[in-house]
Amino acid sequence: MGSSANGFAGDRMSTSNGGGGVDKGVDFANYFCTYAFLYHQKEMLSDRVRMDAYFNSIFKNKTHFLGKTVLDVGTGSGILAIWSAQAGARKVYAVEATKMAEHARELVKANNLQDVVEVIEGSIEDITLPEKVDVIISEWMGYFLLRESMFDSVICARDRWLKPTGVMYPSRARMWLAPIRSGLGDKKMNDYEGSMDDWRYFLNETKNYYGVDMSCLTKPYSEEQKKYYLRTSLWNNLHPNQVIGTAAMIKEMDCLTVTVEEILSVEASISSTITGDDTRLCGFAGWFDVHFQGNKESPAEEEVELTTAPSQDHTTHWGQQVFLLHPPSRVQQGDIVNIDFSMIRSKENHRLMEVELGCEIAPSSSKPLAPFKSKYYIE
Amino acid sequence: MGSSANGFAGDRMSTSNGGGGVDKGVDFANYFCTYAFLYHQKEMLSDRVRMDAYFNSIFKNKTHFLGKTVLDVGTGSGILAIWSAQAGARKVYAVEATKMAEHARELVKANNLQDVVEVIEGSIEDITLPEKVDVIISEWMGYFLLRESMFDSVICARDRWLKPTGVMYPSRARMWLAPIRSGLGDKKMNDYEGSMDDWRYFLNETKNYYGVDMSCLTKPYSEEQKKYYLRTSLWNNLHPNQVIGTAAMIKEMDCLTVTVEEILSVEASISSTITGDDTRLCGFAGWFDVHFQGNKESPAEEEVELTTAPSQDHTTHWGQQVFLLHPPSRVQQGDIVNIDFSMIRSKENHRLMEVELGCEIAPSSSKPLAPFKSKYYIE
Repeated sequence: MGSSANGFAGDRMSTSNGGGGVDKGVDFANYFCTYAFLYHQKEMLSDRVRMDAYFNSIFKNKTHFLGKTVLDVGTGSGILAIWSAQAGARKVYAVEATKMAEHARELVKANNLQDVVEVIEGSIEDITLPEKVDVIISEWMGYFLLRESMFDSVICARDRWLKPTGVMYPSRARMWLAPIRSGLGDKKMNDYEGSMDDWRYFLNETKNYYGVDMSCLTKPYSEEQKKYYLRTSLWNNLHPNQVIGTAAMIKEMDCLTVTVEEILSVEASISSTITGDDTRLCGFAGWFDVHFQGNKESPAEEEVELTTAPSQDHTTHWGQQVFLLHPPSRVQQGDIVNIDFSMIRSKENHRLMEVELGCEIAPSSSKPLAPFKSKYYIE
Repeated sequence: MGSSANGFAGDRMSTSNGGGGVDKGVDFANYFCTYAFLYHQKEMLSDRVRMDAYFNSIFKNKTHFLGKTVLDVGTGSGILAIWSAQAGARKVYAVEATKMAEHARELVKANNLQDVVEVIEGSIEDITLPEKVDVIISEWMGYFLLRESMFDSVICARDRWLKPTGVMYPSRARMWLAPIRSGLGDKKMNDYEGSMDDWRYFLNETKNYYGVDMSCLTKPYSEEQKKYYLRTSLWNNLHPNQVIGTAAMIKEMDCLTVTVEEILSVEASISSTITGDDTRLCGFAGWFDVHFQGNKESPAEEEVELTTAPSQDHTTHWGQQVFLLHPPSRVQQGDIVNIDFSMIRSKENHRLMEVELGCEIAPSSSKPLAPFKSKYYIE
């Protein structure tokens, strides 16, 4: 046997929760554990776009925190809870499912906020608070907003612990999709073809040296490799000039009212107008933004936006999710790209996503090209 | 949030089974899944040292297979079961816990052996055979032999299904340790120091821009990084001239009689004589070999050895496990290195290992240097 260090598996597989309901042990092993590493906390704490947005949303809207009770869902190292306390909160409940809770507690103490911030180790679904809260703050966004399905836990917290007049931080979230050009597609196709060349060499060796014909596995092998190289969305921080058409919103949610039911799947039929001149449509990029706006009764004094859109100056650890088309298509300025987008959770792991992208290009000058449809995995 | 693709976690963590007994769901998600990928099967099937050893052990000892019943534990793609059938076995039971069983079944059929080879999907602990077998064949060896703890399942199969006169393939296994020189130690130490420089920069930024003092996390962060860069054993295929002293055997087992109890831990006090002239002792390398010798009643016609020792001509996918010393020590030809070695299973994941290495250098010319002790993680 001899499997390479766990990384190998992690690299390639979407892990299983047994197909049925979520096995908490499996979910912890596959998901939460990552957040128990300070290295990973540091990655998030070093994301200036992320940090500035939350920092400003709190300190430019102090009235939402002054003398109030706050719940931080998934506090990690405790940074949002600490800022909430520094902004004048009366009490902050900082809930964290992993052992990171212990570090959060140390950090709270080192910053002399132990009388305000109470770190609670446990999953939000299991723990109990002594009171309802005025504010729920959480940094719950995964790749392309919904990967990790962590917002389910925030909704659970909201429905159980937020006062009717309460405020959500962030209060609104949106998902975007736009056509892009990229060299990644050619590279991935080369990687795939290279891996199939290796396979054919391997087949010959195995037949000639060891007398076993493995050609019946060529189809499943090629499917496995296709999924890995061509059908898995890619993390990337694109340059804005790689976006070759108008971005379309595919989902908007009010964090105060959205239900789990409403985020189980995302469905949208959208259009994008090509803005680049005579270029290649290589695929689509998905990103998100969230807004800190308070609520109707008490709107934010200063609205703050956190966006993960392609930017020349600011990149985030979220980057964008890229869905590549094989092959790319030539497009012209003014062409209309009609897209049917749907995203559901993976049956094997509810924190991973499966995307179906239907696409039709209507050239401004001639008749529409044949439509095509692709499936992608967000892992 | 936004954790990098599962790989990130896998890269860094030894996953949890809840501390208590093995949670089968977690174990499957963390361990078995890897083997459900044809890509990984191909890696193993492309290891010529591994393939040649099993191929020769079967076809140069056909009397062990001719007209016999065989059990292949963890058949994967089915290669060992197919060879056993090709060598004349009357019946081969090929047991595989993952969905790879389906591919094994196709492969058996494509090679027209479906009347001899019966592929059974299930874990060996759960399944039942209609009869006892003459031969148990299995490729169960993990890094440094025991990583993955898969031999437990082979022992279970042996005690339940092998006839008293039965033969184990392989029949003997040995673990070796030897002093080495390597540039990896310097590189890893640089990586560690670099990551701590990053951390100190991060501390300043977080204090100055965001008003939070995180210095209380410096110690746990440095421990986390030390474990990752300095205390995790490394996979490597060493050149023989990197081995600077005599190799010592730290474990030998007869696969016919060894018990799980006897492989839960490995303890050895050994000595190695430095053979290199005025060189650096940078650490130790661990490897294993297994032998196909039949048993007393019916010894192999031709013994076959599979070794993962450093070799100029042959590398294996197992490579060697390298345990680095920080800092290295200057040693001379004839110096004696006394080593206390102990390896136990990780409490968090019984398929991963924890090693403790005590080491004392007795120079041939002067008095012994101060002894030192290090802990390592095999992940």
